[in-house]
Amino acid sequence: MFRFGVDYYPEHWPEERWETDARLMQEAGFNTVRLAEFAWSRLEPSPGRFDFDWLDRAIAILHARGLQVVLGTPTASPPPWVMAMHPDAFRVMESGLPVSYGNRRNYCPTHAGYRERSRIVTQAMAEHYADHPAVIGWQTDNEFGDRCYCRHCQAAFQSWLQHKYSSLDALNAAWGAIFWSHVYTAWSQIPAPLATAAPFGDGSHNPGLALDYYRFMSDQYVAFQHEQIEILRRECPAHFITHNLMGAGYDRLDYFDLAADLDFVSWDNYRRMQWTFRPEVNPSEAALSHAVMRGLKQKNFWVMEQQAGSGGWQIVSVAPRPGELQLWAHQSIAHGADAIIFFRWRTARFGAEQYWHGLLEHDGRTGRRYQEIKRMGAELARVGAQIAGSEVRAEVAILLDYDSRFAFQIQANNPAFHYTAHLHDIYQAFHARNVAVDVVAGDADFSRYKLLVAPALYVLSETTARRIEQFVEAGGVVLVTPRTGVKDETNTVVNMPLPGLLARVCGVEVEEYDSLPEGVSQPLAFEQPGICDGASPHARIWCDILRTGDAQVIARYTQEYYAGTPAITANRYGAGHAVYAATFGDASLYTMLAPWLLKLAGVEGTLTTPVGVECCVRWQGERAIWFLLNHTAEERHVTLPAPMVDIVSGQQVDAAVILRPRQVLMLTT
Amino acid sequence: MFRFGVDYYPEHWPEERWETDARLMQEAGFNTVRLAEFAWSRLEPSPGRFDFDWLDRAIAILHARGLQVVLGTPTASPPPWVMAMHPDAFRVMESGLPVSYGNRRNYCPTHAGYRERSRIVTQAMAEHYADHPAVIGWQTDNEFGDRCYCRHCQAAFQSWLQHKYSSLDALNAAWGAIFWSHVYTAWSQIPAPLATAAPFGDGSHNPGLALDYYRFMSDQYVAFQHEQIEILRRECPAHFITHNLMGAGYDRLDYFDLAADLDFVSWDNYRRMQWTFRPEVNPSEAALSHAVMRGLKQKNFWVMEQQAGSGGWQIVSVAPRPGELQLWAHQSIAHGADAIIFFRWRTARFGAEQYWHGLLEHDGRTGRRYQEIKRMGAELARVGAQIAGSEVRAEVAILLDYDSRFAFQIQANNPAFHYTAHLHDIYQAFHARNVAVDVVAGDADFSRYKLLVAPALYVLSETTARRIEQFVEAGGVVLVTPRTGVKDETNTVVNMPLPGLLARVCGVEVEEYDSLPEGVSQPLAFEQPGICDGASPHARIWCDILRTGDAQVIARYTQEYYAGTPAITANRYGAGHAVYAATFGDASLYTMLAPWLLKLAGVEGTLTTPVGVECCVRWQGERAIWFLLNHTAEERHVTLPAPMVDIVSGQQVDAAVILRPRQVLMLTT
Amino acid sequence: MFRFGVDYYPEHWPEERWETDARLMQEAGFNTVRLAEFAWSRLEPSPGRFDFDWLDRAIAILHARGLQVVLGTPTASPPPWVMAMHPDAFRVMESGLPVSYGNRRNYCPTHAGYRERSRIVTQAMAEHYADHPAVIGWQTDNEFGDRCYCRHCQAAFQSWLQHKYSSLDALNAAWGAIFWSHVYTAWSQIPAPLATAAPFGDGSHNPGLALDYYRFMSDQYVAFQHEQIEILRRECPAHFITHNLMGAGYDRLDYFDLAADLDFVSWDNYRRMQWTFRPEVNPSEAALSHAVMRGLKQKNFWVMEQQAGSGGWQIVSVAPRPGELQLWAHQSIAHGADAIIFFRWRTARFGAEQYWHGLLEHDGRTGRRYQEIKRMGAELARVGAQIAGSEVRAEVAILLDYDSRFAFQIQANNPAFHYTAHLHDIYQAFHARNVAVDVVAGDADFSRYKLLVAPALYVLSETTARRIEQFVEAGGVVLVTPRTGVKDETNTVVNMPLPGLLARVCGVEVEEYDSLPEGVSQPLAFEQPGICDGASPHARIWCDILRTGDAQVIARYTQEYYAGTPAITANRYGAGHAVYAATFGDASLYTMLAPWLLKLAGVEGTLTTPVGVECCVRWQGERAIWFLLNHTAEERHVTLPAPMVDIVSGQQVDAAVILRPRQVLMLTT
Repeated sequence: MFRFGVDYYPEHWPEERWETDARLMQEAGFNTVRLAEFAWSRLEPSPGRFDFDWLDRAIAILHARGLQVVLGTPTASPPPWVMAMHPDAFRVMESGLPVSYGNRRNYCPTHAGYRERSRIVTQAMAEHYADHPAVIGWQTDNEFGDRCYCRHCQAAFQSWLQHKYSSLDALNAAWGAIFWSHVYTAWSQIPAPLATAAPFGDGSHNPGLALDYYRFMSDQYVAFQHEQIEILRRECPAHFITHNLMGAGYDRLDYFDLAADLDFVSWDNYRRMQWTFRPEVNPSEAALSHAVMRGLKQKNFWVMEQQAGSGGWQIVSVAPRPGELQLWAHQSIAHGADAIIFFRWRTARFGAEQYWHGLLEHDGRTGRRYQEIKRMGAELARVGAQIAGSEVRAEVAILLDYDSRFAFQIQANNPAFHYTAHLHDIYQAFHARNVAVDVVAGDADFSRYKLLVAPALYVLSETTARRIEQFVEAGGVVLVTPRTGVKDETNTVVNMPLPGLLARVCGVEVEEYDSLPEGVSQPLAFEQPGICDGASPHARIWCDILRTGDAQVIARYTQEYYAGTPAITANRYGAGHAVYAATFGDASLYTMLAPWLLKLAGVEGTLTTPVGVECCVRWQGERAIWFLLNHTAEERHVTLPAPMVDIVSGQQVDAAVILRPRQVLMLTT
Repeated sequence: MFRFGVDYYPEHWPEERWETDARLMQEAGFNTVRLAEFAWSRLEPSPGRFDFDWLDRAIAILHARGLQVVLGTPTASPPPWVMAMHPDAFRVMESGLPVSYGNRRNYCPTHAGYRERSRIVTQAMAEHYADHPAVIGWQTDNEFGDRCYCRHCQAAFQSWLQHKYSSLDALNAAWGAIFWSHVYTAWSQIPAPLATAAPFGDGSHNPGLALDYYRFMSDQYVAFQHEQIEILRRECPAHFITHNLMGAGYDRLDYFDLAADLDFVSWDNYRRMQWTFRPEVNPSEAALSHAVMRGLKQKNFWVMEQQAGSGGWQIVSVAPRPGELQLWAHQSIAHGADAIIFFRWRTARFGAEQYWHGLLEHDGRTGRRYQEIKRMGAELARVGAQIAGSEVRAEVAILLDYDSRFAFQIQANNPAFHYTAHLHDIYQAFHARNVAVDVVAGDADFSRYKLLVAPALYVLSETTARRIEQFVEAGGVVLVTPRTGVKDETNTVVNMPLPGLLARVCGVEVEEYDSLPEGVSQPLAFEQPGICDGASPHARIWCDILRTGDAQVIARYTQEYYAGTPAITANRYGAGHAVYAATFGDASLYTMLAPWLLKLAGVEGTLTTPVGVECCVRWQGERAIWFLLNHTAEERHVTLPAPMVDIVSGQQVDAAVILRPRQVLMLTT
Repeated sequence: MFRFGVDYYPEHWPEERWETDARLMQEAGFNTVRLAEFAWSRLEPSPGRFDFDWLDRAIAILHARGLQVVLGTPTASPPPWVMAMHPDAFRVMESGLPVSYGNRRNYCPTHAGYRERSRIVTQAMAEHYADHPAVIGWQTDNEFGDRCYCRHCQAAFQSWLQHKYSSLDALNAAWGAIFWSHVYTAWSQIPAPLATAAPFGDGSHNPGLALDYYRFMSDQYVAFQHEQIEILRRECPAHFITHNLMGAGYDRLDYFDLAADLDFVSWDNYRRMQWTFRPEVNPSEAALSHAVMRGLKQKNFWVMEQQAGSGGWQIVSVAPRPGELQLWAHQSIAHGADAIIFFRWRTARFGAEQYWHGLLEHDGRTGRRYQEIKRMGAELARVGAQIAGSEVRAEVAILLDYDSRFAFQIQANNPAFHYTAHLHDIYQAFHARNVAVDVVAGDADFSRYKLLVAPALYVLSETTARRIEQFVEAGGVVLVTPRTGVKDETNTVVNMPLPGLLARVCGVEVEEYDSLPEGVSQPLAFEQPGICDGASPHARIWCDILRTGDAQVIARYTQEYYAGTPAITANRYGAGHAVYAATFGDASLYTMLAPWLLKLAGVEGTLTTPVGVECCVRWQGERAIWFLLNHTAEERHVTLPAPMVDIVSGQQVDAAVILRPRQVLMLTT
């Protein structure tokens, strides 16, 4: 069963409206609602006094219309009484200043009192809804993540360190605390890495301390969530548990760790919002987020919040154009979503999200957006069952590493370098060729793939290095980019030439490097014909200056004192190849390298499509469903390998397909 | 009698200089001085010990030269001993951090101890000067306004809310506090809306709470001022009371409320200052400020601080060009000033305003600026009596609404939208045609006008909506712009199509809207000839997509999915017309609409003048005094309807007038 | 003996590596190492428990290789236990927020407890190393400077003021505290000038108070250092004492005062760093720093940290190009350095400066940078003795005034004006002509010079004014620029026409002035032929409008209401000339004025060189050593007055010299 639904807040609306809402949901083809996510004030109006009656009535009305329910634990936004009870439970920002009351996500995940209140409300909800026939699962909290720097966290960090290092000698050695005489002689001396330590940006914290703090803070949220999960698993063994994450861009939490505890992950997919206040939307950005979310547990996911209208808090964002909402929702499905839950049902009349538009207008009218999604619902009613559970299959993987990601937050290395943007620059090259890509952690089973991309693997453990070496030895192709193997797990620079533990497999050593000013770049000269004919991708941001052993030179620098030295090399190692790209190109470099890498690895693409048309495949055993998505506002012509069948209409489609603006086709052979 | 004078700080200069200063003032034609505004330290050197001798001596010297005195209550800058006595009386900023000692306006207007000190010093001054023959009136404090977020204000806010809502249930309902579970169960839980609640700008406070806080803070200053006014009225019944406000741009205080308690308002008119560090000055900006100030009590006003030289604290601004000081002062008069008081007499040699230049140089020399103003004084000595008390008469009004203004501070809706700039964009269209405009509140008597402009009336009460409807019904013309009628008085979005309570009179309903990114615009296509021939004003910032009933379409969008739908409509309603401009144009849109609107309303202009020449009229009964002001640095030719008489020279002026650079003419028939 | 060496942190590396490091240093030609600068944690692991064994062992190994040792007092970075013992010893920023633990330079220089710990560790080190045969001298702390605003500093400021002014009446009068009623009636009321006093930038602190605070803070560091110096002088009378300063750009400390206590000054010379993230390096910027450093005690100096590789904390800067390290080091020598100590030896593997690259790579390899410096070491071994102690001789001096510099930090006067940039604009004009320039304080012996430049002498004492007058009277030439003589020493504007006390010698009075907006400028028209033929330097930033007495007009303004009035004047006064440049030109103005000024003063240049080639001379008695430095990446042709001898090779060099890219020649006759 394909889940199609909406996030609904009955507590925001008069009870007499609920029946109308439920009917309109049913008419839209919805089968699922998420409820209660921020309803703590209504569920527990005062300490220990619970009121589920109103929610029971709301669920009853929805259930009668065929809707099943995902419940949120409401801990992302504590009622005033909770914070009045624990005035020191406010999260403290990196500046050292506490958050004040008035928004949400204002709590410290470490605070014992807050954690107790979280367990109490979760326990009460779990007990009440364990056997409710409409309830199918839970969402923990909402969009976990912001780091806290309060004294409770500092103390917990000290305990976390004590557990990790056992002795201060070991900790001081691991961090190189002797630098600037930061040798700790009592656990209580260890600070949280506040921004006020280097107020002019003149120096970071000790990189070892900072990386450990970022890991610790990630662990705190995992632990906070785990307390809720323990309760839910015990009380509601029949229900699933998920959490709504924030896509590829969110980098404060180790999502692999957070996902480990969940049955599946969900994420919140907003394409055009206040913070991306612009008319264009790049489909590969959403696609990368889908790949990351799918990779966290290497399985399908839910979109728990799929954009339903303009987003915005103080600012109203550009309105989604006709067709965009269904297009974006279909893209989610094409990349592995087994559920599309729109956020939100009706645009709120009050509160901080008055301009975070739902499917219905402020006054309850069903307008253009509702009608568009209702049409999608009607189609899904026909084909959803064929889609649900079908899987995306990839032969290419990109390695996403949280240690490296956190470490780059401490030292960016170059002002123009952004880890996520680098991942996206590489990802888009495969996306443009409709090649499915998995995003995986360092401990994933690489043997499932033919091509592995390891972008900027800055912090590299011996285990991961060995696993990459074995992958290449066994015939895989790996692409390695600069700033790989620079640090060991203590965030100390390795005592060997870069790329450190991957130098052998890559067949190169970094003699020295040049960090380029913004705007400075140089063309690369390719040695090998057929890779980059007629084009000239540029080196930018960073240039490693290499000494090569047996590695073959693919391209060379053309300027500066290292003109003529290798910029891209390929090394035969065992049965495979390790490619070292010694500079960060812009997207065009990877666009040029991708076909060569795919050929080297023996990976074939699905379909060549014009710019702006995406083609994804989901597999049900041996049956493939092709999603053709026209992301443009113009007609696009696509040539299929053969005529196919439109699974919605059941009709045959010619090999020469014309896609209308923003049209989506789901085809099978 | 026309008041002409200067702000003087005798306490800054050796007593032996006072006589020289008084003589130079007399020679400049001055008849009025403002004194003691920041003299608290000298008037009350220690708690309860008062010293008026020095001020009495200064007044005696000035009075002997024919100068009368306005006294300031000195509370805008407390002496060190006051703040040492009340260390918690420092204003707390939106960041949550208290202001520290070293500037002025550093006090919390709520603090009981500070209020007591304010009453004590006011009482002592009032008693001492009640019967002084030189003293004519009072200025309260100085430039009221900055919001405080301290715990005293928070507690006072809670009381203010308790008084307003009686019960927490009513408050929670009004604000929609259920959103994000902010349901308050004790008055003491209610926060001040600190910026630290949403440190990353990701979400505002609850809009209902924030709007109430902004109203509350405005009320606090009104109440603080009222305590001084009560004393002054009781002790000095013969004296006027005013306050120096900050023109059209200042938006933290409801100036209508603040003005209600005063005999008349004053304002501080600076044209080229540190914060507008640029060579050009736009005369319509000052003109709008004059119109706003005149509108606060719908009567003439004083300019209590008229620019006398370069302004600046850390930075020295561009020097006023020869002729500019008198030009700007004359513009003030042309728009309704009955007094011009220059700030300041002599440039201070010490203190934070060393570069806030007075008429005299640091070393006491009388230079170019003094001579220019002295010439103006000589002219005013001849014609001042004819001008004083004469009035500006307008048939066009622009509605200025503080609820909307505050609400836009909470949610800007679009990053390019600024309420005051929008008012100015419209105002300048009338100003360019020399059409007098009143700026009025929602409860003004609209029947005095033929054309009413209601820009972005975001928060709209039923009363105001009904009054606008009645105005149109009775034959008036109203111009309504986007984001009107969006909110009720609780800052909740209305439960009806926009423009909400004005939808009926406008004959349109907003189906949906598109908020445009910066730099994106589209040309409008006008249906009606004669409005916008040959030009193409653009839609920008915001586009409402309309469903029209009987309203006539004036212009349509030409791009995007709403191309061809109405962008400007006119609706016949009763005996009048309601025009709905569904997009925010730039100034050129209103420049094009203005003549059509004026024609529709039957308003005639005064005189057509070349760019940079302003023509204003003040009426004394049936006698008109025309002010012709050449704001440019070049000669300008103006054609009068007939020869007129220059009231300064008494000589006839030909219909074909040539104005010298920055020349001002005052003419009558 | 010329000192050539490196900054070394043996405590960062395994003891078994030390011998290798010492050997490589010896092979590089090094004879000096700086040690222990940040080693407090290792020297005093807990309060009062000292451990010098490890350092003794390190010194022994180095000494055996012929290296002598400069020791740093380690107080720039306290160990955690020190700050845990004194939690209120953290420096408080201008924002009022305390610095937190995690970096260095985090202490308050006033804190009594911190000062005591500083004395204890200094005493212990001094006692232990007083008679060590390898130790030759001391560096106090590291890069003194950041202002503290804590309550200890506030209290010390109050005492400092009490000592300076004796009475509050005197203080209130000096500051003009009556302005805004800031009349202090108790010493304890006086605040530190926190940024929170005027949170919106609307007004500075009282300029008198702020200037005194900046002087006070400078004094605090001088006093803090003095406590260490007293100990070192007492215990180690045979050792020299120095401190590593930060060049011309650092402006928070009166370096003349700080230097007074030292035997000689050192400085840290970084050319291309994180904060100058750009490929180009301007040699005149380093040259100015050298001139400033040399001027502090009017004697030669050390470079205690000479750049050894890319610098950076979070960011890696552009790599030094081949030849640049030796070029920059040679430039230091050419300008008066008697020691070059590279920072650092080996790139740290841990800590906040992992990317502050040393001569050796992270993994200990000796790469391109080490080899370059080793070559330099071999040359210096031959010629160092001829260079050491030789002196730079200048006939031109630029006056650097800390009172003015501090005062401009309080009031910039114009947003485009920067005191140091103004000095550099003038300095580069002489530098481009290879004219040696001393930078001196107001109390220097001006009679040593023919031309004195007094840029923006904003705060001017009677003594300095009289000394300048006497210098001109006796035949000197002085160049005075705008904003000179504006303030007396209380930061009060003078009670006379500008340039105040220099008006008479300059023969001009400033009638008024115009502060120009950014981007606005106007060409100057030169009256005198031969100064500026064919070029048109522009007035920008500021235009004084002058009344001239006997002064001759050199150039006039061409635009605005002061078109035609004098912009540059020259006044014959006694046997000399005073030139008043009434506007701040850009560098080109001074480039044009320089030859005329030099001619007027009778100063001859050394050599005319092409752009990018610098020629400096050091004198040993009557013997001159010429340094020719090619700062460009291209060949450059230079014509010498006659053939000379290369002191490195001993070979004759033709008058027509070809310099290779970044080549340095040291020549003698």
